[in-house]
Amino acid sequence: MNFNVYCCDGQYLIIDVGITFGDDSTPPGIDVICPDISALRSVRDQIIGIVITHAHEDHVGALHYLWNKLKAPVYCTPFTASVARRKIGEAGLLDQVPLHEVLPGSRLELGCFKLEWVTLTHSIPEPNALVIQAAGRTVFHTGDWKLDPHPIEGEHYDDRRLMALGESGIEFVVGDSTNATIEGWSGSEAECRKALLEVISGQPNRVAVTCFSSNTARLASLGEIARETGRRITVLGRSLFNYLQTAKANGYLKTFPDLVPTEDLDYLPRSEQLILATGSQGEPRAAMARLAKGEHQDLYLEPDDTVVFSSKVIPGNEKKLYRLYDLLSRKKVNVVTEQDAPIHVSGHPCRDELRWMYRALRPACVIPVHGEERHMAAHADLVTDMGLGSARVVNGDVSHLSDSGATLIATVQTGRLGLSGSSLVPLNDRALSERSALADGGLVTLTVVLDKKARLATEPQVQFVGVPSGDIDPETLTGDLKYAIEDILAEQNSRTLQADDALRNALQREVGSLVRQWLGVKPKQLVNIIRL
Amino acid sequence: MNFNVYCCDGQYLIIDVGITFGDDSTPPGIDVICPDISALRSVRDQIIGIVITHAHEDHVGALHYLWNKLKAPVYCTPFTASVARRKIGEAGLLDQVPLHEVLPGSRLELGCFKLEWVTLTHSIPEPNALVIQAAGRTVFHTGDWKLDPHPIEGEHYDDRRLMALGESGIEFVVGDSTNATIEGWSGSEAECRKALLEVISGQPNRVAVTCFSSNTARLASLGEIARETGRRITVLGRSLFNYLQTAKANGYLKTFPDLVPTEDLDYLPRSEQLILATGSQGEPRAAMARLAKGEHQDLYLEPDDTVVFSSKVIPGNEKKLYRLYDLLSRKKVNVVTEQDAPIHVSGHPCRDELRWMYRALRPACVIPVHGEERHMAAHADLVTDMGLGSARVVNGDVSHLSDSGATLIATVQTGRLGLSGSSLVPLNDRALSERSALADGGLVTLTVVLDKKARLATEPQVQFVGVPSGDIDPETLTGDLKYAIEDILAEQNSRTLQADDALRNALQREVGSLVRQWLGVKPKQLVNIIRL
Repeated sequence: MNFNVYCCDGQYLIIDVGITFGDDSTPPGIDVICPDISALRSVRDQIIGIVITHAHEDHVGALHYLWNKLKAPVYCTPFTASVARRKIGEAGLLDQVPLHEVLPGSRLELGCFKLEWVTLTHSIPEPNALVIQAAGRTVFHTGDWKLDPHPIEGEHYDDRRLMALGESGIEFVVGDSTNATIEGWSGSEAECRKALLEVISGQPNRVAVTCFSSNTARLASLGEIARETGRRITVLGRSLFNYLQTAKANGYLKTFPDLVPTEDLDYLPRSEQLILATGSQGEPRAAMARLAKGEHQDLYLEPDDTVVFSSKVIPGNEKKLYRLYDLLSRKKVNVVTEQDAPIHVSGHPCRDELRWMYRALRPACVIPVHGEERHMAAHADLVTDMGLGSARVVNGDVSHLSDSGATLIATVQTGRLGLSGSSLVPLNDRALSERSALADGGLVTLTVVLDKKARLATEPQVQFVGVPSGDIDPETLTGDLKYAIEDILAEQNSRTLQADDALRNALQREVGSLVRQWLGVKPKQLVNIIRL
Repeated sequence: MNFNVYCCDGQYLIIDVGITFGDDSTPPGIDVICPDISALRSVRDQIIGIVITHAHEDHVGALHYLWNKLKAPVYCTPFTASVARRKIGEAGLLDQVPLHEVLPGSRLELGCFKLEWVTLTHSIPEPNALVIQAAGRTVFHTGDWKLDPHPIEGEHYDDRRLMALGESGIEFVVGDSTNATIEGWSGSEAECRKALLEVISGQPNRVAVTCFSSNTARLASLGEIARETGRRITVLGRSLFNYLQTAKANGYLKTFPDLVPTEDLDYLPRSEQLILATGSQGEPRAAMARLAKGEHQDLYLEPDDTVVFSSKVIPGNEKKLYRLYDLLSRKKVNVVTEQDAPIHVSGHPCRDELRWMYRALRPACVIPVHGEERHMAAHADLVTDMGLGSARVVNGDVSHLSDSGATLIATVQTGRLGLSGSSLVPLNDRALSERSALADGGLVTLTVVLDKKARLATEPQVQFVGVPSGDIDPETLTGDLKYAIEDILAEQNSRTLQADDALRNALQREVGSLVRQWLGVKPKQLVNIIRL
């Protein structure tokens, strides 16, 4: 997730406010993660603006969660603004957030910052780099980019402007490292379209394609391919509808064919059907997973249909996707992935693109960002090999940009906050750790009600949640534990019986030991002592 | 996980009793999964033997969990017997399990089954195929195999015997499909050794290698490489010690160098150190993960040390491993994986090996097993392309083997049981589903103690587990809920107050609504109504 802050003369400029997603290293039940921006709390009044470079979730996705802590005007190009507006609206903040649309190529002064939007290419419409000038320094903040000579939808990158910027003197580049370990070029959407056409035109039956919903160029290609191969398109999945609508509202997908309602699909021969479905990462509730499981309400895939994954496998989703491929194979559906044909291209610059850019910009110093450590290290090595300076920053580093490069002058607190209902909570919150314990071993609750003389007022209550009782009958198990608790209480001296903590410890120790002995497990214990 | 049953004249022969491991599609807290063999319950007395083909976990790992339900003698070669004996011993079954060692190449009659052990090559010592003759039929059950011309440790495969078997007439092959989608050959341990030597001899500092502990050939190679590059070996991780010991006890690793105790490693220059570490899949408690996190008690990796992953990434472990690579990169440790050099070979046959085998055996019919659907489908296609018959089976299929091939005659119940403490429980056990709910949203317990007139005898108890309270003070939250519960009770009519179920429903509904309103979450609710 991206969150960058530039500071000059006590004024703060924020570039991108993104989220990331929970995975097997984060607490269960946390799907969305935002940056911890508490370091900005004391300077909140000095934030003069928030610029969103493009509409991907890792750049815009936290805007509606964090805007209340920033309360600054937002600037972005129209397509990005449409996406941001939908999120802000869902959060009920439409009246509050000043959202300013800026055209690609614009210039704008925000306090002491002079900004220029520079059009690049990526895998979503309107990806922008920013030239940031302040205090006599010039920074080229790339955002996410690649050099696509045939981007299909949206503007081309402006190589003359990039070279002119190099002439006029770019001192610093803060740049995308995602593909810095990969030699060559990332490839063009046009090549991808060619491969998709080849795959789809070879299919005798129904074809269902899944790709990232925000990749408007890919959707445009599929629209053209549908026309060329005599197929009609139906769309499954809300995020595809949203992005199609947003793209059209912003002047993209002008020639995209009219959709066929899914319920009318059966009137067409299978050879004339092209289905666009959400869920390229195997998301269990998305359309593709439901198609694979045969659980989609409107459509059943049949033997010799073809499913095309026009997408990469995002690390962490491999097994989920392999399971989908397998479900589809069992239905005798052909599965085509980027392993089989070049039907996906990355949106990030490979090493030759990085070299091209730095030859054009000729920066004094490159600061690699946006990638794992090994990507940023490879990026820095490439820069060094080109004879340019580089500086490394990690989350929380505050660097001073000067003639001598980027110098670390401070570090501030950063971190990750998980979205739990309507709250943002630190991922190390005790309650979230408890969840992991509950997940691993379940829970047993013990409740004892004691009268004024610390005698049981009624029989103890025992309840297991998430603890399989195996071969033991559950009622026998809880019954035996109730008797055991009565025995344990009978064995305590009166001081222990009067002290909640001591009594709780005794119960936990003894009951824990019995449960371990009987079931071989150690569930979390919740002991509730109620005194009348 | 592997569990195969052959039946002839009312006698049952079991081949392999393996486990598999929990993943993101299985309930939390379940690490080990066994096959559900309840279909054999009624014929338990007719099981005449259990043959284990080799010592990998997916072939032998469930023996000690399921033996009590089988109670038949076990037959395997000595290395496999050593591994099985350790497991049986840990389960306290050493006195009970009749474990018979059979030498590679042996023949044995078990009831109406004539068995012949046929040595193959794989990634562990003593991988055996079995020729099974019964009722005039001949089946070649491959187990896991590859054709390694230079297996480094253990016997070579016996191509003459395989061809002779083809001459004598193999009707059915039940065969490994793992790599049936991959053209060519799987490669040899000798090629792998060469690549490892090249990588390790180029390193100026410490080298730590992780590989599968059971791959004795790989360990032998590393022993030789240590000698050739003037390094001494230390070993980190229990499973490596176990397998080294088992291999030596069975006559393998004869020239493996003496280990240096880890605590003495500091006496050696870094350039003379070679560390073998467990954890090639990024297992969080294994040695490699602890080295990467800097948490290993005995050893700290330093900048310019090298870590070599001489292993494949098992699907599902990608992200865990990428995180490890990243942690190591941050310590400026060089990371070498099979992406960088051919330092791993698979133990399963690629398509040319399958073709070689079927040309040698000339079976009438191949039954693909051991793989995902797409692997078994590719296997069947290859067989068909060779002009041989094939038959598909899925878990639970009972096939009759006759002159006309394999015919499905019945299906029996199969499934997967999770190991929870000392119990094996169905993965769809209600308690395990509850765990997922607890993991996703935590739990709130409400306890009300009512007197004989259904009035509160003391204040209600509210306790949250695994529910972050966000910006709300936890004590305020539970305090407000206690008042709310008192109000809810006051609003109920006397019939509801007297009926546990109705009262529980009312409390769940009202409290659930408040929690959703205040925190935006829906934790599981546990309502405990105690009547005095």
